[in-house]
Amino acid sequence: MLSFADFGSDNHSGVHPDILDALRNVNEGYTVAYGLDKYTKKAVEQMKEIFGKQSAIFFVYNGTAANILGLKTVTDSFHSVFCAESAHLTVHECCGPECFIGCKLVNIPTSDGKLTVDLIQPYLIGVGDAHMAQPHVISLTQATERGTTYRPKEIQKLADFAHKHDMLLHMDGARLCNAAAFLNVGLNEICGKVGVDVLSFGGTKNGMMYGEAVVFFNKALAKNFEFIRKQGMQLTSKMRYISTQFSAFLSNDLWLQNASHANEMAHLLARQIQNIPGVQITQKVEANMVYAKIPNQCITRLQRQYYFHRFNEHTCEVRLMCSFTTKPEDVLSFAQAIRKALDAT
Amino acid sequence: MLSFADFGSDNHSGVHPDILDALRNVNEGYTVAYGLDKYTKKAVEQMKEIFGKQSAIFFVYNGTAANILGLKTVTDSFHSVFCAESAHLTVHECCGPECFIGCKLVNIPTSDGKLTVDLIQPYLIGVGDAHMAQPHVISLTQATERGTTYRPKEIQKLADFAHKHDMLLHMDGARLCNAAAFLNVGLNEICGKVGVDVLSFGGTKNGMMYGEAVVFFNKALAKNFEFIRKQGMQLTSKMRYISTQFSAFLSNDLWLQNASHANEMAHLLARQIQNIPGVQITQKVEANMVYAKIPNQCITRLQRQYYFHRFNEHTCEVRLMCSFTTKPEDVLSFAQAIRKALDAT
Amino acid sequence: MLSFADFGSDNHSGVHPDILDALRNVNEGYTVAYGLDKYTKKAVEQMKEIFGKQSAIFFVYNGTAANILGLKTVTDSFHSVFCAESAHLTVHECCGPECFIGCKLVNIPTSDGKLTVDLIQPYLIGVGDAHMAQPHVISLTQATERGTTYRPKEIQKLADFAHKHDMLLHMDGARLCNAAAFLNVGLNEICGKVGVDVLSFGGTKNGMMYGEAVVFFNKALAKNFEFIRKQGMQLTSKMRYISTQFSAFLSNDLWLQNASHANEMAHLLARQIQNIPGVQITQKVEANMVYAKIPNQCITRLQRQYYFHRFNEHTCEVRLMCSFTTKPEDVLSFAQAIRKALDAT
Amino acid sequence: MLSFADFGSDNHSGVHPDILDALRNVNEGYTVAYGLDKYTKKAVEQMKEIFGKQSAIFFVYNGTAANILGLKTVTDSFHSVFCAESAHLTVHECCGPECFIGCKLVNIPTSDGKLTVDLIQPYLIGVGDAHMAQPHVISLTQATERGTTYRPKEIQKLADFAHKHDMLLHMDGARLCNAAAFLNVGLNEICGKVGVDVLSFGGTKNGMMYGEAVVFFNKALAKNFEFIRKQGMQLTSKMRYISTQFSAFLSNDLWLQNASHANEMAHLLARQIQNIPGVQITQKVEANMVYAKIPNQCITRLQRQYYFHRFNEHTCEVRLMCSFTTKPEDVLSFAQAIRKALDAT
Repeated sequence: MLSFADFGSDNHSGVHPDILDALRNVNEGYTVAYGLDKYTKKAVEQMKEIFGKQSAIFFVYNGTAANILGLKTVTDSFHSVFCAESAHLTVHECCGPECFIGCKLVNIPTSDGKLTVDLIQPYLIGVGDAHMAQPHVISLTQATERGTTYRPKEIQKLADFAHKHDMLLHMDGARLCNAAAFLNVGLNEICGKVGVDVLSFGGTKNGMMYGEAVVFFNKALAKNFEFIRKQGMQLTSKMRYISTQFSAFLSNDLWLQNASHANEMAHLLARQIQNIPGVQITQKVEANMVYAKIPNQCITRLQRQYYFHRFNEHTCEVRLMCSFTTKPEDVLSFAQAIRKALDAT
Repeated sequence: MLSFADFGSDNHSGVHPDILDALRNVNEGYTVAYGLDKYTKKAVEQMKEIFGKQSAIFFVYNGTAANILGLKTVTDSFHSVFCAESAHLTVHECCGPECFIGCKLVNIPTSDGKLTVDLIQPYLIGVGDAHMAQPHVISLTQATERGTTYRPKEIQKLADFAHKHDMLLHMDGARLCNAAAFLNVGLNEICGKVGVDVLSFGGTKNGMMYGEAVVFFNKALAKNFEFIRKQGMQLTSKMRYISTQFSAFLSNDLWLQNASHANEMAHLLARQIQNIPGVQITQKVEANMVYAKIPNQCITRLQRQYYFHRFNEHTCEVRLMCSFTTKPEDVLSFAQAIRKALDAT
Repeated sequence: MLSFADFGSDNHSGVHPDILDALRNVNEGYTVAYGLDKYTKKAVEQMKEIFGKQSAIFFVYNGTAANILGLKTVTDSFHSVFCAESAHLTVHECCGPECFIGCKLVNIPTSDGKLTVDLIQPYLIGVGDAHMAQPHVISLTQATERGTTYRPKEIQKLADFAHKHDMLLHMDGARLCNAAAFLNVGLNEICGKVGVDVLSFGGTKNGMMYGEAVVFFNKALAKNFEFIRKQGMQLTSKMRYISTQFSAFLSNDLWLQNASHANEMAHLLARQIQNIPGVQITQKVEANMVYAKIPNQCITRLQRQYYFHRFNEHTCEVRLMCSFTTKPEDVLSFAQAIRKALDAT
Repeated sequence: MLSFADFGSDNHSGVHPDILDALRNVNEGYTVAYGLDKYTKKAVEQMKEIFGKQSAIFFVYNGTAANILGLKTVTDSFHSVFCAESAHLTVHECCGPECFIGCKLVNIPTSDGKLTVDLIQPYLIGVGDAHMAQPHVISLTQATERGTTYRPKEIQKLADFAHKHDMLLHMDGARLCNAAAFLNVGLNEICGKVGVDVLSFGGTKNGMMYGEAVVFFNKALAKNFEFIRKQGMQLTSKMRYISTQFSAFLSNDLWLQNASHANEMAHLLARQIQNIPGVQITQKVEANMVYAKIPNQCITRLQRQYYFHRFNEHTCEVRLMCSFTTKPEDVLSFAQAIRKALDAT
């Protein structure tokens, strides 16, 4: 067991006290199961305030499910989904999308985790040719797996391109809050208002216990979702316990406080280590993570004390993740430990 | 909103206070995600105490997932799974098993929800014939969807039959605790010790918030489960919160207290209504539910006050469900209301 | 190797000489692949003459594919398809429909292989309930696997019922020609004109080498078929060789001659054996097969000389199949052999 | 309709007369369906002579099916299959592999269609990590889609690498004959003898009408194939007509004659056009195709007379395909037409 702070994942933190309280507050009495309860109604209304009256909102257990089932609802088995080659969807969902949707993920190389029209264009081939997977969705991650964020205009441009080619725009928003906090905009400014069609909206990485939302900005797209969610093993019986978490998460700017703090800690960490000789920060630090190259020996030495991951097992690039519970003093100590580890090698 | 007690589902109750406390108790500090944490290790050990050292134990979010992913791990796409025609697996999982496993569910008619060797035998055809789905699993529900329970010897007989024909025995144990409580035996006396190969072990209907376990009694069968769980959208990141619920559930006989209470309330209800003229109890009352025929008009009238379901929309048979929170006084009032409704018609 | 005639399957016969000639006649020169050739255009036109100008016609390799891919095109993974419990779709396609469509097949018991509204009605449950597979298609087999046929009015009634409940009517027409020949009607009188939405139209059992057609009577339903066919491994490269078979099959009443002959042979066989003591004909003889109960010992003895199948390995009911190549003298000899076998026991 | 020769595809040619004769020769009499007949037995024996006594051989309708079903038999839904980014498997099977196997195809960039250990190595990540698709198969195409061929030693090296990492080696041999003819080796020298585990062996592009074989070099791997083939819609009823084609194809060196001729025509074409100013041959010409860059206007002009494809709709690289029916005089005329078209621009 490591005695120091953990920069491995924003999933390694616990649950915010407000969320725990919310769980306790809905515990009394009988409540109809599967989402027909008053707590779910309230949470959905709160979300419609944010994402628009025309949206359709559904809760699932986790982000992998939000991605896979949201996409399954709007794609056929012969479709292709364009995503960054670093996208969680293609790298870290154990080919769930291929297995459960039947579609092809087209992995597009991009150095900073962000897609652009120019990057996608060469992959837009075979439309109407029965031998080839049919382009149908562009999937963005906001904030990206590389810690970068899409500006509203960038998203709008991708949305326009998608729609012009009869495609949809999907957004994996596991860290949408971190992106909004960094960009200093409302949540919907970087999804529904700039052309996103389907969103996975995440809470777990930002202080919730479990639960993720799928948002369809045009409810006509959501027609089959309830069947696909049940079939997809993601209809929770005691729905009130997910709904109340979202209610609390969206109240009193809890989402924003948590995300801002996590981002700030990443920025602090970046400032602390950017000038250490031997450390090379490899991505712009925007959301709550820092990517850096550190010599191999230092990684090994540091991992005896701190939990964090290599980005790729073949390289010496590491991912350092901050969360709503990261303490400034732990960031400072960690930076200090990196400095020491480098001195020692 | 109904002001009276709810006999609609054991999912309509909240969460037991011990479970809520357990969630709070693991909340401090960083914990590695995805099941490598100490809380999960402890819960798995507690479960191995019960289900045997040779077992392999995994947590998922819900019962539908436990059934589908447990079965997917041990079947191929050309296999068939025999189940009662009333099984949750085939009736209430929105053809998830067919979609995600690719197998055929063979629905076997049975009046009390229980399978026997004699009932299954005629369906055991086509072995080795490439045109036909290959018999591979018998799936039992314990307690059944009809509230009845399998005795240990009955299970052993089915297990022997299954194994003799190179099949496996699966058990949907969403209400395993209710069955064990009714039969007055340990949990493993009605699964692992009598030949069950794969078990879905449920906690949610019996006082937990979310979380279900898949138990493979021979860990060799579990070889691929971790990949199938992740791909199947059921690997929770903050695993400690499922694990600690199971730890609490299995401590201080909480599972047994909750299940016994729910069963007793069903038995009380049955005693109260069995002699009401016009009411016909249609299934042996063993676990926590009562099936009864009530005239159509009464059903309509009663549903204005009480939440409960018809078993089949074409008939006047109703399912009355009790849970760990059902109060004796509510049972008595409900019985009284049934009496009144019948008098009024 | 058996030296006598074969009553095992209409697939055991060879290919009609006209079909072989047709293959040779299109062999010269280059032809664009995958169905854009003139032979395919011609065959499709011939079929539209029969099935209507609004229909969309596609060729695949075999009947299992025609069924599975035709249905996949019009169903979602959470749908259910109602069929007779004896349907090829559910009995003899090795759970391909479940695996490749993801749907549930609802097997409806029926003594003569035919469905009726009354038989289906009790299974029409759960509409709109996300826990349950959603009724979406009724699939008939014409002629049925039990040798019986649907009259046009019977089909219309099922079509009206299906459409009233927002379902589609599918027909497995592997032996559509035999049904039309028996009923003395045109092919479309028992499909498109009486409300069938999707048809598998078979030629292989009736004198072709390989090749089956999927007919969508409203071409809007066919929107995705070409992608699903390619993905489903059923787009033949050298399409001209399927198309030309269909052209020959539909010319000079070849389909009708072949089917009529096969039917007549079955009727002759039935007349020859119906009065043999110990033989019990178990189904009305309409198309090209005879179902009969024969004592077990006779079956064993007869199978030394003649190839034929038991209908169910647990019973002594046999299926005796005639084809376009069955000779009257072989029918008479076979009837004689049955008589002898019964005398000997 | 174009009046000149066709360089669009080796699928645009007809069927070799020996194949047509073979079809006629097996047409008489009854033959048991689904592959239990003597013609199939004979064809399988011929193939075992070539591919080894330990192999298991099965026939399917086409190459897409051979690839998908061969791979499905040896992979699980959470596996990944490495292939060249130009592989038919990933480009031209309309995401059938993803849909029917459930696996991930990892597209590896390669300029000449050939994979090497060095190219694959960086993609070999995440072994044992439940979040990531598990590397399981390397799939080669021989000859490649770019017309190049793997030497026996190159294949052996890839096989050793695959096996060392507990992976299997699959070969798409739609043009295995062309590769063997070019390399002047026996068929098994470039598959079974150098470590290939599963082979799709093609005949259609080389003179057959339809039919492809799946070869498992170790029959233990083939355990489930017959079920997967039937479920996968690829069990032909009148199997004798595929089997006899393979018998003829493998007799009298027909496969070799046809493949050699096709290759020679491609080499002739390459020699004729390589020195035309404005034409740039882009791949080594080994098997039966020539890749070349030709100015856009010329492509348009030439396609008025000759049928051929662009390799990629965004570029001016074309694929010129020869077959067993390509005539030398047509090659010469085509080269002349290219010269003229270039002169005219």
